[in-house]
Amino acid sequence: MELEVRNYDLDTSEPTVLMHDDDCLVLGVAEGDRVRISGGSAAIAIVSVSDTLVSPGTVLVPPSVQERAGVAAGGRGEVAVSHSPESVRYIREKMDGKRLDPEKISQLVADVVAGRLSRIEASAWLTALYIKGMDTDEIAAYAKAMAESGDRISFGSDRVFDFHSFGGLPGNKITPIVVSIVAAAGLRMPKLSSRAISSACGTADFVETFCRVDLDTEDVRRITEEVGGVFSWTGATDLGPAGDRMITVQRPLGVDPRPQMLASIMSKKIAAGATDLVMDIPMGTESKVPTLEEARSYARDLMDLGEALGMRVECAITYAEQPLGTAVGPVLEARECMEVLERRPGHDDVADKACVCAGLVLGMAGYHDGAAEARGILESGAAHRKFREIVGAQGGDPEVTSEDMVPGPLSETIVADRSGFVRRLSNRAVVEVAKAAGAPGDKGAGVLLGKKLGMKVSEGDVLMTVYAEREDKLRHAVETAMELEPIVVEGMVIGRVCPE
Amino acid sequence: MELEVRNYDLDTSEPTVLMHDDDCLVLGVAEGDRVRISGGSAAIAIVSVSDTLVSPGTVLVPPSVQERAGVAAGGRGEVAVSHSPESVRYIREKMDGKRLDPEKISQLVADVVAGRLSRIEASAWLTALYIKGMDTDEIAAYAKAMAESGDRISFGSDRVFDFHSFGGLPGNKITPIVVSIVAAAGLRMPKLSSRAISSACGTADFVETFCRVDLDTEDVRRITEEVGGVFSWTGATDLGPAGDRMITVQRPLGVDPRPQMLASIMSKKIAAGATDLVMDIPMGTESKVPTLEEARSYARDLMDLGEALGMRVECAITYAEQPLGTAVGPVLEARECMEVLERRPGHDDVADKACVCAGLVLGMAGYHDGAAEARGILESGAAHRKFREIVGAQGGDPEVTSEDMVPGPLSETIVADRSGFVRRLSNRAVVEVAKAAGAPGDKGAGVLLGKKLGMKVSEGDVLMTVYAEREDKLRHAVETAMELEPIVVEGMVIGRVCPE
Repeated sequence: MELEVRNYDLDTSEPTVLMHDDDCLVLGVAEGDRVRISGGSAAIAIVSVSDTLVSPGTVLVPPSVQERAGVAAGGRGEVAVSHSPESVRYIREKMDGKRLDPEKISQLVADVVAGRLSRIEASAWLTALYIKGMDTDEIAAYAKAMAESGDRISFGSDRVFDFHSFGGLPGNKITPIVVSIVAAAGLRMPKLSSRAISSACGTADFVETFCRVDLDTEDVRRITEEVGGVFSWTGATDLGPAGDRMITVQRPLGVDPRPQMLASIMSKKIAAGATDLVMDIPMGTESKVPTLEEARSYARDLMDLGEALGMRVECAITYAEQPLGTAVGPVLEARECMEVLERRPGHDDVADKACVCAGLVLGMAGYHDGAAEARGILESGAAHRKFREIVGAQGGDPEVTSEDMVPGPLSETIVADRSGFVRRLSNRAVVEVAKAAGAPGDKGAGVLLGKKLGMKVSEGDVLMTVYAEREDKLRHAVETAMELEPIVVEGMVIGRVCPE
Repeated sequence: MELEVRNYDLDTSEPTVLMHDDDCLVLGVAEGDRVRISGGSAAIAIVSVSDTLVSPGTVLVPPSVQERAGVAAGGRGEVAVSHSPESVRYIREKMDGKRLDPEKISQLVADVVAGRLSRIEASAWLTALYIKGMDTDEIAAYAKAMAESGDRISFGSDRVFDFHSFGGLPGNKITPIVVSIVAAAGLRMPKLSSRAISSACGTADFVETFCRVDLDTEDVRRITEEVGGVFSWTGATDLGPAGDRMITVQRPLGVDPRPQMLASIMSKKIAAGATDLVMDIPMGTESKVPTLEEARSYARDLMDLGEALGMRVECAITYAEQPLGTAVGPVLEARECMEVLERRPGHDDVADKACVCAGLVLGMAGYHDGAAEARGILESGAAHRKFREIVGAQGGDPEVTSEDMVPGPLSETIVADRSGFVRRLSNRAVVEVAKAAGAPGDKGAGVLLGKKLGMKVSEGDVLMTVYAEREDKLRHAVETAMELEPIVVEGMVIGRVCPE
């Protein structure tokens, strides 16, 4: 059926064209079916149906599909029924519990990257992965296929170090510190981070408050060669794009199937050219990895995967029962990160974790006592100098200090209504409050903790300060804090049990 | 955030609103997230993002959402972040293999019917059901919840008979015959059928060529009271709407999870007030149920379900290796159905199956030899008179005859290029050819089989006639037939095996 092409700028995660009811009836397609649009070339899209937004005889086509199909607004395009891509069959095979060979996995990744799978199909895939899982060889093939689906960075035959944290720990702002220490030791670390998915602040979200994070693949390579490392955002590169596509489906579902998570992480490391990887696995009741048993099982999987992929992998299982440091939210985390590099007092947990993780990297590079070496680099100021160099290379002001990082401008404190000890500090609740305050979208929004687990509290002490950029969000955040009670204070005697 | 409401007539299976990039950033939502729109009342919708189709400060809202939210185009509405509905948690529980109690199942069905679940979530639910399944009590609770989610028909304390075929058998046109026989015997049968999902013609698709099938719940009740039965379309009633919503997700996935299928069938029967149900389970290599073992397992499940739901259920496992009768496609099937009622010769398999199925119903009602009774009612002309009465009550011409049913107008015959016997007749290929010809959308399109399995064929004999309403579709159908070869003719000697 030949239709007139009109422009349709609907920015959805799947290529959608809008057709009129009557044309759909004649063509024999319904909402959610696939059509093939062709002009100079051809593209597949999912049909949406309307009887008012589009006139009979016309089809609304988004620019990206126009380009692939070789059609243009104002011109005409041939629209035909299209069948499901081959990989829908592989999704059903996984649903039936079958092992998929590398060719099938590769085809599926290609369909994901080309946008040929609908959200319904992608969701079925993730659900099947969640339930049926994958063995190490399948995950390795999945990671390789994802890496091959995008850009690759090559540093020749030199060793390239990388570091990755599983996430789920609020306030985990150590990445720029680790990179600065490692690069100061003369090693290469092209570290790419993500933005927050469901958390209040990803590494890219706070780093962009003081320098650019939209480095493309070539920038990452060049800056790493020049100054030893970057701390940038994966999203501006095209490394392992298949994993990013899946995020838009994972997020609403609230699931992160293990094979998907592992393959997605490893794909980006392969694509970034990493030869040596340190994995940080934060373990805590409310984190992704709640028990030591699970943490060990992830560590084992990651090392097996590394072996299958020819990459050296070491894992650190780290403490995640409460937020790291005191700051949660972009500007607040940037400030605390810089305070550690500037060797200001009062952030021991952040500094310790950064030195241990950087130390593992140095250990892989051959240092005898990596952690001590890392601590020395931090305390000598060498890490801070390297940090400033990298910030400058990433287009930021190399003279930036923690004092330039000012949260707010609105804030409210929450004080203790009794004396006692902090018996509970909920990661999840802290994140909810920071998000209600506007993080990570509003850079100045977030939470600054006044007390942490086990600390003694007197009535009237500040438990937390909530920062926001807008009055309504500040109110919402304070209400959220009142409802969720992120910090619970109780006296030493919790209750009395007496004989009757 | 207060936004100006504008009209958005996008007829998707999930309520979607379109917001500008900038507003999304401020509100902290992304593509696929949920928002709550409120005016006089409130409604939940999924966010789509655009930076050209919508201006900052405005939100495009479909009429159905406007109505529920109590907002109107031109007016203003409050838009806020909304969390996932409770039932997303139950979907994850099913993914983890947990049993769901009736309250959770009920909540999930309510969320489906209210459009609160996105396609991504619905897909995860169906995938989890496919992989993890449900036990009889869960399916019964699911069926009940689905039935309660829509209209109910009540016939007081009288027995109400129903009949259902699993589908997957092309040309299965017996429903109006069964209803006519049963109603002629003085019993009640308010039979509601679906349209084709992936087949070439559902019962509703061919019945609507000679009378209305868009009866609402009250029409169904009234006509059944007046003349004993109806053969109408489920889609115009609001019986078990949750099952229908799921179809839009099942179709692209190409899966029909057993618990979903069983609960969906039973929900419509409960809602229609059925007390006694005969299930037809067509068994054939290319049908939904390929083996006797599976057919028996379905029969067992259905009877267990009936017991859990307080409904008498009997099952017939029927032959489905080839299409029933010779006609596939709306007008063609209507004609063959009427020819059986008019007692014209040559449709023994259709008449037999109809009498056996109607006979099972009569048996449940207490007749000693139901099948013989049914045959008597058909042969006496009583079924035909009842059929005309029902057609009249459904707004059709009661004088309609098979001669009024004229397929085409375009047709082409496919003849045998050799003599021999029909060794293969593929249900799937016949359906593909009929669909390529335009069925079920084009009412006159379809396939008329000239030969069936095992029949002797001489070179030049007509194997099938393809009917269509449009030249291009006729061509497409003939090409499909050439490619798929629905009918394979071979000599008695297939090959020779000789000692060397």
